[in-house]
Amino acid sequence: MRTEHDLLGQRDVPVDAYYGIHTVRARENFSITGIPIHKELVEALVVIKKAAALTNISIGALDAKKGEAITAACDEILTGALRSQFVVDCMQGGAGTSANMNVNEVIANRAIERLGGQKGDYHLIHPLDHVNLHQSTNDVFPTAVRIAAIRLLKPVTESFANLQSALQEKEEEFSRVIKAGRTQLQDAVPVTLGQEFGAWAQAISRDRWRLYKAEERLRQVNIGGTAVGTGLNAPRSYIFTMIEKLRDLTGISLARTDYMMDPTQNCDVFVEVSGLLKTAAVNLSKIANDLRLLSSGPYTGIGEITLPAAQAGSSIMPGKVNPVIPEAVNQVAFQIIANDTAITLAAMSGQLELNAFLPVIAKNLFEELNLLDHTLPIFIKRCIEGITANTQTCREHLENSTVMLTALTPILGYDKGTEAALILKETGQSIRDIILEKNWMTAAELEALLKPERLTSPNTDKKH
Amino acid sequence: MRTEHDLLGQRDVPVDAYYGIHTVRARENFSITGIPIHKELVEALVVIKKAAALTNISIGALDAKKGEAITAACDEILTGALRSQFVVDCMQGGAGTSANMNVNEVIANRAIERLGGQKGDYHLIHPLDHVNLHQSTNDVFPTAVRIAAIRLLKPVTESFANLQSALQEKEEEFSRVIKAGRTQLQDAVPVTLGQEFGAWAQAISRDRWRLYKAEERLRQVNIGGTAVGTGLNAPRSYIFTMIEKLRDLTGISLARTDYMMDPTQNCDVFVEVSGLLKTAAVNLSKIANDLRLLSSGPYTGIGEITLPAAQAGSSIMPGKVNPVIPEAVNQVAFQIIANDTAITLAAMSGQLELNAFLPVIAKNLFEELNLLDHTLPIFIKRCIEGITANTQTCREHLENSTVMLTALTPILGYDKGTEAALILKETGQSIRDIILEKNWMTAAELEALLKPERLTSPNTDKKH
Amino acid sequence: MRTEHDLLGQRDVPVDAYYGIHTVRARENFSITGIPIHKELVEALVVIKKAAALTNISIGALDAKKGEAITAACDEILTGALRSQFVVDCMQGGAGTSANMNVNEVIANRAIERLGGQKGDYHLIHPLDHVNLHQSTNDVFPTAVRIAAIRLLKPVTESFANLQSALQEKEEEFSRVIKAGRTQLQDAVPVTLGQEFGAWAQAISRDRWRLYKAEERLRQVNIGGTAVGTGLNAPRSYIFTMIEKLRDLTGISLARTDYMMDPTQNCDVFVEVSGLLKTAAVNLSKIANDLRLLSSGPYTGIGEITLPAAQAGSSIMPGKVNPVIPEAVNQVAFQIIANDTAITLAAMSGQLELNAFLPVIAKNLFEELNLLDHTLPIFIKRCIEGITANTQTCREHLENSTVMLTALTPILGYDKGTEAALILKETGQSIRDIILEKNWMTAAELEALLKPERLTSPNTDKKH
Amino acid sequence: MRTEHDLLGQRDVPVDAYYGIHTVRARENFSITGIPIHKELVEALVVIKKAAALTNISIGALDAKKGEAITAACDEILTGALRSQFVVDCMQGGAGTSANMNVNEVIANRAIERLGGQKGDYHLIHPLDHVNLHQSTNDVFPTAVRIAAIRLLKPVTESFANLQSALQEKEEEFSRVIKAGRTQLQDAVPVTLGQEFGAWAQAISRDRWRLYKAEERLRQVNIGGTAVGTGLNAPRSYIFTMIEKLRDLTGISLARTDYMMDPTQNCDVFVEVSGLLKTAAVNLSKIANDLRLLSSGPYTGIGEITLPAAQAGSSIMPGKVNPVIPEAVNQVAFQIIANDTAITLAAMSGQLELNAFLPVIAKNLFEELNLLDHTLPIFIKRCIEGITANTQTCREHLENSTVMLTALTPILGYDKGTEAALILKETGQSIRDIILEKNWMTAAELEALLKPERLTSPNTDKKH
Repeated sequence: MRTEHDLLGQRDVPVDAYYGIHTVRARENFSITGIPIHKELVEALVVIKKAAALTNISIGALDAKKGEAITAACDEILTGALRSQFVVDCMQGGAGTSANMNVNEVIANRAIERLGGQKGDYHLIHPLDHVNLHQSTNDVFPTAVRIAAIRLLKPVTESFANLQSALQEKEEEFSRVIKAGRTQLQDAVPVTLGQEFGAWAQAISRDRWRLYKAEERLRQVNIGGTAVGTGLNAPRSYIFTMIEKLRDLTGISLARTDYMMDPTQNCDVFVEVSGLLKTAAVNLSKIANDLRLLSSGPYTGIGEITLPAAQAGSSIMPGKVNPVIPEAVNQVAFQIIANDTAITLAAMSGQLELNAFLPVIAKNLFEELNLLDHTLPIFIKRCIEGITANTQTCREHLENSTVMLTALTPILGYDKGTEAALILKETGQSIRDIILEKNWMTAAELEALLKPERLTSPNTDKKH
Repeated sequence: MRTEHDLLGQRDVPVDAYYGIHTVRARENFSITGIPIHKELVEALVVIKKAAALTNISIGALDAKKGEAITAACDEILTGALRSQFVVDCMQGGAGTSANMNVNEVIANRAIERLGGQKGDYHLIHPLDHVNLHQSTNDVFPTAVRIAAIRLLKPVTESFANLQSALQEKEEEFSRVIKAGRTQLQDAVPVTLGQEFGAWAQAISRDRWRLYKAEERLRQVNIGGTAVGTGLNAPRSYIFTMIEKLRDLTGISLARTDYMMDPTQNCDVFVEVSGLLKTAAVNLSKIANDLRLLSSGPYTGIGEITLPAAQAGSSIMPGKVNPVIPEAVNQVAFQIIANDTAITLAAMSGQLELNAFLPVIAKNLFEELNLLDHTLPIFIKRCIEGITANTQTCREHLENSTVMLTALTPILGYDKGTEAALILKETGQSIRDIILEKNWMTAAELEALLKPERLTSPNTDKKH
Repeated sequence: MRTEHDLLGQRDVPVDAYYGIHTVRARENFSITGIPIHKELVEALVVIKKAAALTNISIGALDAKKGEAITAACDEILTGALRSQFVVDCMQGGAGTSANMNVNEVIANRAIERLGGQKGDYHLIHPLDHVNLHQSTNDVFPTAVRIAAIRLLKPVTESFANLQSALQEKEEEFSRVIKAGRTQLQDAVPVTLGQEFGAWAQAISRDRWRLYKAEERLRQVNIGGTAVGTGLNAPRSYIFTMIEKLRDLTGISLARTDYMMDPTQNCDVFVEVSGLLKTAAVNLSKIANDLRLLSSGPYTGIGEITLPAAQAGSSIMPGKVNPVIPEAVNQVAFQIIANDTAITLAAMSGQLELNAFLPVIAKNLFEELNLLDHTLPIFIKRCIEGITANTQTCREHLENSTVMLTALTPILGYDKGTEAALILKETGQSIRDIILEKNWMTAAELEALLKPERLTSPNTDKKH
Repeated sequence: MRTEHDLLGQRDVPVDAYYGIHTVRARENFSITGIPIHKELVEALVVIKKAAALTNISIGALDAKKGEAITAACDEILTGALRSQFVVDCMQGGAGTSANMNVNEVIANRAIERLGGQKGDYHLIHPLDHVNLHQSTNDVFPTAVRIAAIRLLKPVTESFANLQSALQEKEEEFSRVIKAGRTQLQDAVPVTLGQEFGAWAQAISRDRWRLYKAEERLRQVNIGGTAVGTGLNAPRSYIFTMIEKLRDLTGISLARTDYMMDPTQNCDVFVEVSGLLKTAAVNLSKIANDLRLLSSGPYTGIGEITLPAAQAGSSIMPGKVNPVIPEAVNQVAFQIIANDTAITLAAMSGQLELNAFLPVIAKNLFEELNLLDHTLPIFIKRCIEGITANTQTCREHLENSTVMLTALTPILGYDKGTEAALILKETGQSIRDIILEKNWMTAAELEALLKPERLTSPNTDKKH
């Protein structure tokens, strides 16, 4: 153990720990979820520290030797080192101070080692005076959350593009499978199975676009604003250089907001982005529900499609295969909608110059993004791509129901339509057989009328 | 009473009612909220009926005399007539069928009268065969909800612009009122009161922009898609003319979606728009909370601003004036966030070719928009515009706290800063007095350092 | 117009209005929802005023003549008079002050008239000094909300009892209709249709019990606590007599809480009750969903039950009948879950000695109760009671699927089971026909094994 | 690697893994959250397996040697062994099948080893035929979730009792600290600081009671119901013995529900319990908010109490100490309210004979319980117990405001009250000084009137 000091007194710190007294206290105070701050948030914080060190060297505020030790320590962490040292709980009071201090301390101690010192020799490199120089948790943490969110958002946006493509491939593949369309779960009018996948793809294409735009919202950062966004104690030269360094290091087109007090206290941007993720969750849930309906049965349900078997379905009914992937998608959607509530509550609870609840916003937003990132590829590969059409069932549903009749009545006339409906109801005979038996049409005529093109697009038979 | 017939049999209808049997049944089935469908939704439905009649005349599908009677009846309603006849409950099963039929019946019966017939003489004008010709509830209702939403959105967007302006006027007015900034409700660093209004204005400017963009989302309509979006039984000429007529009559840049099955079943656009309104609610709630905090007391709270007195505040404490307008704004925000939940639930519950729950989405979305429409002007006129600064209190808070010390420590040096903090803690003497008494600065020097420009913007004293 | 005065100055009031200046201001300040305070809340407030007048007379604090005029005015209102005079918006700032003052003013002016005075002659009867004597909005309003909630809760609890009975009658009626049970929408094992109704009835029986208990939570009131629950300025004799009078007048076993500061500021009881209503909404939604699934098709869906036709279902597909009543129930459930969010947000936003947001809690709670009160009888009468079983379809689903096989495999043996499953898959032949054709069993043996008692209850065949 | 087989084919399994092919597939299918099923859920599942083995031995359905190997394997796990083998994701499709199979496989392979076999020699002990004998995921998993929830609930209920005690100790400690009460954040009437803690304690006492009752709700289990609750393939003797064994092994008064189809498909009990946890979260959030308000400043806020310093508060404002523990409590409350949404959504999405979404319900419910379990002791020890009163500030707020005047006006008379209020407003002089200066009372008289007993309880001065 080594002994460290802070405003409140002194504490023992494990001798091989790179973190220090602030982290030790924070762990005790926030033994809440048991989940540390997100890996992507650690990286974003470290990138900011590196950018700050480079900036402070360049404006002459930080000794080059110290600064280089700091940037070298940052580089080590960014390539994967010391990750076990970021231990503060993701749900922490204090507006992110503990996350910031954990990062400051680990960088400082690693930099001290690089300069030949012992961990805790803060006269060599001080977590606050050097690593945190010209920064405040209140500009560092909101900036880091935005950088991490952008990084997590990118693969999710790509996954939505992939999902759209997968659905559109099925739209094409099933473009000639005619079947019953249902409104309010009741027999309605003909559609193709391809059209159903196409309608889902349309919704997903909007999600893709929304998330692409969401990134823009996140790019405005308040780094340089220090405690409340007034930039108190930060030199102008630091502020202007800092954003450039950060842009270079992250490769993200970050912009320093014109009004730094705004992102320090307002979290509406996270509510907006989470709202868009929630919108996507609504679409995913609708698609998953429809897949489960269309594949239901197979004998006593709709059974028009078959989902690929992902695993044995029952411990008691041996041959049963269940729609487990869509069920997982539904649950992911429920969780995202739930997390959106946490973000909304936290964002509306900000007070005056700061929102102290950004940690819980970050936790929930990152979780939403991770859930989508993990689940969408599974949904695509293990479900959508392997779906097969039960063409025969689709056709039977069409021919043995009023769905086909609705499409034919304009041709048959109302009276024959009514007669056929009654026969169907009483005998269960198919509309096809009824029509052929009655000699109302030939099989060829009937088949021509049942072509997908004709059945599932606006009427061109009429003279109008 | 007159007797009317439908699929299920016959029913008596009040002889002077313009609505018919479908409406009578719907009232019995959906005696749920007691609130009829929204006035703006009625108008949107009637505009669609007028556009359809004009279209059907133009393509030769509807007898001109009948068609003109229909459009004339529509015009009467659009100028305010017969509004008491739209009686079906806003929360109805059936995906809006009852709202559509209520409108079809009222228009038909008024058109019948114009042709010299008696209400119920549907051989003259039939609600379905003529008024609803080439339409389905499933394309009419979603299109009407979008038109109504756009109309309700416009004044709300303007109100957000007005709120932004009102806040920015105060930003200007209070630009030289220096005061204590607070983070986590604890004394932090100096800000101006104007900056606080400016930070709120920034958040509202984003809301304004978001809602402006939200309108674009709503413009894609599925009119012409009929039952499931395939356009079954609708002539192509009808579909292409209809959207043009509708654009003309509404003055809104509506666009027929390329994929009409999509808006028939997917309601994500409403989730997105409601999500943006929820985001605005979060900002409004944060501002209302801050106003209540800053005006708290006045003697035992923060008391840095005074809200205009809107009404006597207490039935027991005679002189008490309460922040009743911000309290109303908070409650409006709670309600909007709640309504967003209803919209989310309903949107995710759509199944296959239709979302049967669009009525509850419409109810909640329109309510969100109406709440903002009614409340924002009150918030602006009866609260924001009349706020006054308690400049003296603001100054005292600054001078009698560590807030001023934080700003001065870089000048005074750390040791004097610590000494002053201790004297403040023990004696309660103001920092100003301590400094002058100790002869650390002259009054003029001190005043120069307390200029708003210096206190509340990045440091230019340092050489960096 | 007459002129009235208050703390803020003077205002004109319509000469025939029973309300006064406080109400006039409140209408201007809170033109929010356009919906006045709930009728049941008005009654609860008036009952409190009557109880207070009787109490104040009895303890000698109020002149008997004035007091009797007040109680007589209250009685008039309670029998239905003057209801148009309660005009303040249900969503009001000020913690209910405006609702309380609206009631005080109407009672005062009506009492003044009874004493021969003119409206506005408040020296005869003063809204505050006499009608509101020894009260504060902060004890009156929370007490009134509880009384109104209890009154609205009673018929809802009865409706849940009726729903349970209606489901249990169907459980009995369909106790011998054997059918396929489904898990994860996939064919599973046999159940009876009656058992499905029985499972729903079980859930509803819990709701019934929960709501019955919920009433107990609401009975603790803070009347007598005045502004913050300390009872400041209220004589002890008033406090003790008041609760007795109120109990007598309402017929509800109200109890004065031991700690009156508690219900003045804590709204958790409303969150609890709304949470129970939300739980009931979850059950209702599950039942409505199942009814829509089981009645889906009828030709292309499950079609095992038929819901009574409530109205014609489509403006374009003439014979279509939709499950409109369950769809309304779903929407009611969505709304209740949404309103629960508003209540939660408002309850958690109370500060120090008061929760200023009780008006929005009351609005949402009363709306939840009204929605259930209006919808449950419709659900029972227009849906549940008229449901018929499609026994033949149920039987076919059982016999033409692996569901029957799962039940028979322990008898047939695994090898024959597998063989039958393969024949079913390839030919679509029913399991019944396969077994008889193969001579594995006689028709009589098979029928004995398919008895509901055997199929749908624990195994008694085995020796264990 | 060893090779295992299932319905879908064969897969390699790590040779030293105790889990088998079902678990391998599940890990691939549900790489969703990265968080395995909850430790407490694993234990509950293992206890059920042990009870089932004991039961099956006792009814002669399971060979004693095999059965004893199974129970011995269960005992090993229950004492902490093999915990790394429970690897399936907590958010899984399939209604818990993967969790059940993971447990079946680990127990089977450990039991096989105990019998001298190699992992994968399922002819010795089969995961389904022996470990899962007479069970189905659909009765095992819901029963296990209830057992785990009860176990997690117990310490939470105790923590609420401790919180109540801690608050009541402060109620006693601060019973004579008189101060200003505030309604709507505005100066109101006198209270004691003790009363404020007492009001919070009242709310928490209700939470404690609610959670105590919540346990009762969870005790009804459907073990023995197998796939859909009909008990298909489970001998009656098994069903009756099983619940007794389970009661013995868990020490919980579990009861087999009369209607086993009910808990298999209905999840309302979890909604109810989560609703009660949400109610507690509302109370915790209100208390945390009030603590942050009362400790705000200290110089520019209310500053009537001081929270114990938990850690240094700012990386830029050195002496700042922030209310980090209440801030963590707020965030926990937000998360619980959010999780309640997930539970509600999942519970309402059950279909027909099963709710496939119980895994996400379990995840969210356990998380709510864990959050409270971890946070409440911190809240008590690191915040509540260390709170100190700033008695002087409390007194000054009372004496320098209209709060004191409201209490004295009945004694002073209205005119003097008004005069004092004006002097206060103009000069800021304290009410005490004004009264003494004017010689309206002596210091002794005034002090007598300011006794806590008199100021903060109902009026006994009047004759009434």
